[in-house]
Amino acid sequence: MLEVNTLFIMIASILVLLMTPGLAFFYGGLVNRRHANNMLLTVFMMCGLAVILWIAVGYTLSFSGNYWGIIGNLRQILMINVPIDAVTKTGIPIGDYTIFMMMFAIITPAIFCGSVVGHGRFNFLVIFTICWAIFVYYPLVHMVWAPHGFLASLGAVDFAGGLVVHVNAGITALILSGWVGRRKEINAQHNNLSWVLIGTALLWIGWYGFNAGSALAVNDTAVQAMLTTTVSSATAIVTWMMLDHYQFNHVTLSGACNGAIAGLVAITPGAGYVTLGGSIIIGMVGAAISQYFIVRVKPHLPIDDVVDAFGCHGLSGIWGSIATGIFASHQISKQVPNGLLFGGGLHLLTSQIFVTVLTIIFVGVIDVILIKLLTIVLPVSVDNKKMVAVQSQDL
Amino acid sequence: MLEVNTLFIMIASILVLLMTPGLAFFYGGLVNRRHANNMLLTVFMMCGLAVILWIAVGYTLSFSGNYWGIIGNLRQILMINVPIDAVTKTGIPIGDYTIFMMMFAIITPAIFCGSVVGHGRFNFLVIFTICWAIFVYYPLVHMVWAPHGFLASLGAVDFAGGLVVHVNAGITALILSGWVGRRKEINAQHNNLSWVLIGTALLWIGWYGFNAGSALAVNDTAVQAMLTTTVSSATAIVTWMMLDHYQFNHVTLSGACNGAIAGLVAITPGAGYVTLGGSIIIGMVGAAISQYFIVRVKPHLPIDDVVDAFGCHGLSGIWGSIATGIFASHQISKQVPNGLLFGGGLHLLTSQIFVTVLTIIFVGVIDVILIKLLTIVLPVSVDNKKMVAVQSQDL
Amino acid sequence: MLEVNTLFIMIASILVLLMTPGLAFFYGGLVNRRHANNMLLTVFMMCGLAVILWIAVGYTLSFSGNYWGIIGNLRQILMINVPIDAVTKTGIPIGDYTIFMMMFAIITPAIFCGSVVGHGRFNFLVIFTICWAIFVYYPLVHMVWAPHGFLASLGAVDFAGGLVVHVNAGITALILSGWVGRRKEINAQHNNLSWVLIGTALLWIGWYGFNAGSALAVNDTAVQAMLTTTVSSATAIVTWMMLDHYQFNHVTLSGACNGAIAGLVAITPGAGYVTLGGSIIIGMVGAAISQYFIVRVKPHLPIDDVVDAFGCHGLSGIWGSIATGIFASHQISKQVPNGLLFGGGLHLLTSQIFVTVLTIIFVGVIDVILIKLLTIVLPVSVDNKKMVAVQSQDL
Repeated sequence: MLEVNTLFIMIASILVLLMTPGLAFFYGGLVNRRHANNMLLTVFMMCGLAVILWIAVGYTLSFSGNYWGIIGNLRQILMINVPIDAVTKTGIPIGDYTIFMMMFAIITPAIFCGSVVGHGRFNFLVIFTICWAIFVYYPLVHMVWAPHGFLASLGAVDFAGGLVVHVNAGITALILSGWVGRRKEINAQHNNLSWVLIGTALLWIGWYGFNAGSALAVNDTAVQAMLTTTVSSATAIVTWMMLDHYQFNHVTLSGACNGAIAGLVAITPGAGYVTLGGSIIIGMVGAAISQYFIVRVKPHLPIDDVVDAFGCHGLSGIWGSIATGIFASHQISKQVPNGLLFGGGLHLLTSQIFVTVLTIIFVGVIDVILIKLLTIVLPVSVDNKKMVAVQSQDL
Repeated sequence: MLEVNTLFIMIASILVLLMTPGLAFFYGGLVNRRHANNMLLTVFMMCGLAVILWIAVGYTLSFSGNYWGIIGNLRQILMINVPIDAVTKTGIPIGDYTIFMMMFAIITPAIFCGSVVGHGRFNFLVIFTICWAIFVYYPLVHMVWAPHGFLASLGAVDFAGGLVVHVNAGITALILSGWVGRRKEINAQHNNLSWVLIGTALLWIGWYGFNAGSALAVNDTAVQAMLTTTVSSATAIVTWMMLDHYQFNHVTLSGACNGAIAGLVAITPGAGYVTLGGSIIIGMVGAAISQYFIVRVKPHLPIDDVVDAFGCHGLSGIWGSIATGIFASHQISKQVPNGLLFGGGLHLLTSQIFVTVLTIIFVGVIDVILIKLLTIVLPVSVDNKKMVAVQSQDL
Repeated sequence: MLEVNTLFIMIASILVLLMTPGLAFFYGGLVNRRHANNMLLTVFMMCGLAVILWIAVGYTLSFSGNYWGIIGNLRQILMINVPIDAVTKTGIPIGDYTIFMMMFAIITPAIFCGSVVGHGRFNFLVIFTICWAIFVYYPLVHMVWAPHGFLASLGAVDFAGGLVVHVNAGITALILSGWVGRRKEINAQHNNLSWVLIGTALLWIGWYGFNAGSALAVNDTAVQAMLTTTVSSATAIVTWMMLDHYQFNHVTLSGACNGAIAGLVAITPGAGYVTLGGSIIIGMVGAAISQYFIVRVKPHLPIDDVVDAFGCHGLSGIWGSIATGIFASHQISKQVPNGLLFGGGLHLLTSQIFVTVLTIIFVGVIDVILIKLLTIVLPVSVDNKKMVAVQSQDL
C-alpha cells in the first residue's frame, strides 16, 4: 500500500460525498418554497439508496469480469470475494477505491433527480433510479473505467467522469423532465439564495476530490487538475456575470453560482489533461453555452428542468468532453495524445466527439426504454397529492 | 515522525471539530424557533469551554500517569512537561494526538447539552459540564484509551469512542433531561429542516475523522472503518425511511437525517473491527431501535429529551457496542478476537455487554451525584426568564 | 516531489478556499436583510475576480524576479514559463504552491469588501479591488514572502499572513469605510445568526489550512500551528463571552463568533512560532482589544465598518504581529529567535513593531492614493439606486 495515495483517495472520497448535500442545497435554493424541503430529501436520500445499490450489485457489475466491454458479471454481489486489501496500480487498497467510486454513484443520480422534484411521483423516481443504476450507470462505469471497457478502447479520454457523471445525468434529466411534463403551477421565484451559495461552496470544495482525486495518486496530474479546476470555475463565474451585466444590466448571486458550476462541469473531462490556458477558455465557453441555453433557449422548450441539470451538467459536460480533444497536451499528461491545438490534429478530437455522441445515444435510448416500461406499471407524474417526497407535515 | 499518519490525524482532527457546528445545526433545526439560537450558542460554546478544560486539566487527568486504572495524575496541568514532539506508536507527534483527543472532548458535552436547552439554566449547564468533564469524561477516556485503563483491561474494545462519547453523552442527556423535567410549553414543530440537513452533512463528513481517524494510521483498518461507516449510515437512512413509510405512510427529511446519525453512532464502537455485512445489520438495527424508542416509547416517558440525544446516541451507541461482540472479525483486524458470528463464541460479546453496562452505571451514578450536589447551590431548571443561553436580543 | 507535503498543501488550499464562502456567510449574517444577498455576492465574486487576477499578473508580480525588494517583474504573465512541476524547498511542486497562494489572494480582498457593502458602488469596488491587488497586495506578498523581500529582510516574521492578509485587509477596510461615509439608514439588527455561525465554522475549519498549511510541510511546526490556532480561538470565545457577560449581563452567539474570529486572526502571525501558553494570552488579549474597540470606540467614530473588518482583522492582526515578538520561542521553531518572554530581549519585538507600522503606512498611503485617483473618474458612494451588487430582483 502507498499510504500517501491511500490517504489522498480517502480524503477525495469524503470531499465527493460532500457534493451531495451541496447539491441538495444548490437545487433546494433554486426551487420555490413549497418544493424546497422535498428537494433536500430527494437529493439526500441518494446517500442511502445509491450506497446500498453500489454495495449490492454496483461494484460487481462495474468491475468484476467483463462481458463484451459493456458490463461486468455478478460474482461479487454484496462485495463478497472482493479482495479489499489488494492494491490498485497506484497503491490504493481496493476498499479505498470502492469508496471513491461509491461516492460518484451517489452524486450522479442526485443530479438528475432534482429536475423532476415537484412534478414527478416519489415512488416512480425511486424505482426509476434503481433501474437506471443497473442499466445505465454501472454499464457506463464499466465501459469508461474498467480495464476492457468499450468506450475507453475507442481512444477517448474522460479524466474525472464528464461522460459517466455529467453528460449521463444531464441527458437523463432532460428526458425525465420532458416526460413528466411541465408543472401546473410555475413559480420562478427562487426560494433561498443563501442555500444556492452554500450549495455552490460545498460542490466546489467537493469537486477537488472529484477532479484531483481522479488522478488516483498525489502527482503532477492531480496538482494540474486542481489548478485547472479552480481557474475554469473562476473564469466561468466572471463570464456569466459579465453576460448577465451586458444583457440585463445587473448581476446576480444565482448567476455567479451557476457560472461556478458550469465551469466545474466543463473542466471535469479534461482536468488533468489540458493546459492552464485551455482551462480558461473551457470555463469561459462552458459558462457562455449554459447561460445561453438557460436564458434564451429553455423558455421556448416544452420541458421544465427546474434546476437546470441539463443546461448546466449536460451542456457544459458535452462541451468539456469535446474541448478535451482541443486543449489536451501530451506535455501535461503522458496519458493523453496532443489535442488539436497542440499539433495532435483531429485524432483525439474526433474520438472525443464520437464517444460523447455514443454516450448520449446510449443513455438516451436506455432511459426512454426504462421510462416506457415503467409507465406501464407505475404512474409517472404527479396527481397533486403524492408529489416527490411527500412530507408536507415537515414544511 | 511518520508524516503520512501525522497528516492523517491532523485532517481527522479538523473533521471532528466540524462535527460540533454540525451538531449545533442538527439540534437547532429540531427545536422550535424560540430556542434555536440558544441551541446554536450552547453547542458552539463547547468549542471554547471544552478546549480550555482539556488543555488545563483534561490531558493530564486522561493520559499522565495512572491511579487504579481509573484516572491520571495532575503533573501535566496546562500541558506543561508534555513532550509534544515525541511520537506515539503509529508515529504521530503527541501534539497531534492531543489535538485529535481535544476534538472528542468538545463534541461529547455538546451532544448532551442540547437535550436541556430551553428548560435548563445556562449557569447550571456550564458548571455541570465542567464537573462532568473532570469526574466523568476524563476518567472514562483514561479507563478506555490510556495504557493501563481499567475498562480496556477487561478485554472489551471500543474502536472510535462508542462508550466514551456516545453512550456517555446519551446517558447523561437522559439523566439531565429527566432531572430538569418537562418544558412548560411543548412545541413539537421543527424550526428548520434545512438546518437539520446541513447539520447531518457536517456530522457525517466529520464522522470519517472520528471513525477512520481512530485507526491512528493510514492502514487497512482505517479504510475498513470508512467503508463500514458509510454503509451503516446508508442502511440506517433507508431503514428509518421505510419504517416511517410503513407506519405512517410518509417519509420525512428529519427521519432520513435521524437515520443517518443513528447509523453513524451504531457503527462507531466497531467501525474498524466488523465486516461489511456486519455494518449493514448494525446500521439497520441501530435505526430500528432508535426509531422505535423515539416514536413509540419516548412519548410515554416523563422525560423531555428535545433533540433525542439519548434516543439516537445513547441507544444506538449501546447497540453498536454490543454488536461489536457479534460482528467483529479477527480477519478484518488483528486487534480483536472473533465475535459470536465468526466462531469466537460468547467471549467478546460477554465482555462488550459487561463493559457497556459498567459504563452506563459509572456515568449514571456520577451524573446523579453531581446533579444532587450542584442543586444544593444552584437552581437547575428555568424560571422562564433566565433560560439556557439568554440572548433574546439576538432572536 | 515529496508526496506527503504536496498532499498537505493541496488540502490546505481547499481549506483556505472554504474561508471565502465562510466569510460571505459570516458577513452576510451581520448585516440587515436588505444587504444580505448583496454581501454574499460581493464576497463570493472574489472567487472569480481574484483568481483571474492572480493567474494573469499576480503570480509574476509576486514571485518572478525582484525589483528593490518591493515587487516582481512581468516575465511570467498568465503564468507562462512558470515551471509548474519544479519543487520548492519543502518538496512541493510550484503548481501546488501557486494554488495555495491563490487562495490567500481570494480571501484578502473578500475581507475588506464586506466593509462597504450597502454604501459603496459596485463598479467602484471592482475597480478598486483590481488596483489594490496590483499596487498593494502583490507588492506586500513579494516584500514578506519572496526570497529577497524587503520586509522579510528586516528580521521580522509573519508565519501565516498576519500582515499580508489581516492587517492589510483591516486597514483597507478602515480607509474604505471611512471614505464612503456612513450609510444613510443604519439598521443594527442582525440579519441571521445562523449564517454567522456557519460562516464562523467554515472560517475556523479553513483557518487550519491557512495557519498549519503555512508550515508548507508536515512537521512539528505545522502541528504546533494547529494547536495554538485551536487554543487561541477557544480562549478568545470564552474571553468575549465573559466580557459581554460582565458588561451587559448576557452572552450572545454573535459575540462568541466574533471572539473566535478575533482569536484566529491574533494567532495567525505567530501560529508556528509561539508557545501554547503564549497562544492562550494572544487569544485572550486579541478578543479583549477587538471587543473593546467594537463596543466602546467604534460608535463614536465617523466610520461605518458594518462587519468590523477593521475591529476584528485589523486590530487583532496588529496585536498578533506584535505579540509574536513577545511569545516566539526558538525552542518551538528554529526559524525564529526568542521573543521578549524567552530571553530574546527587545530584538524581535522591535522588528515586529517596526514592520507592522511600515505595513500600516504602506497600505494606508497606497490605499488613499488609489481612492483619490479613482474618485476622479468614478463615483464612490451610493446614489441609493446603484448599490454594491445590484440584484434587488434576487432579494
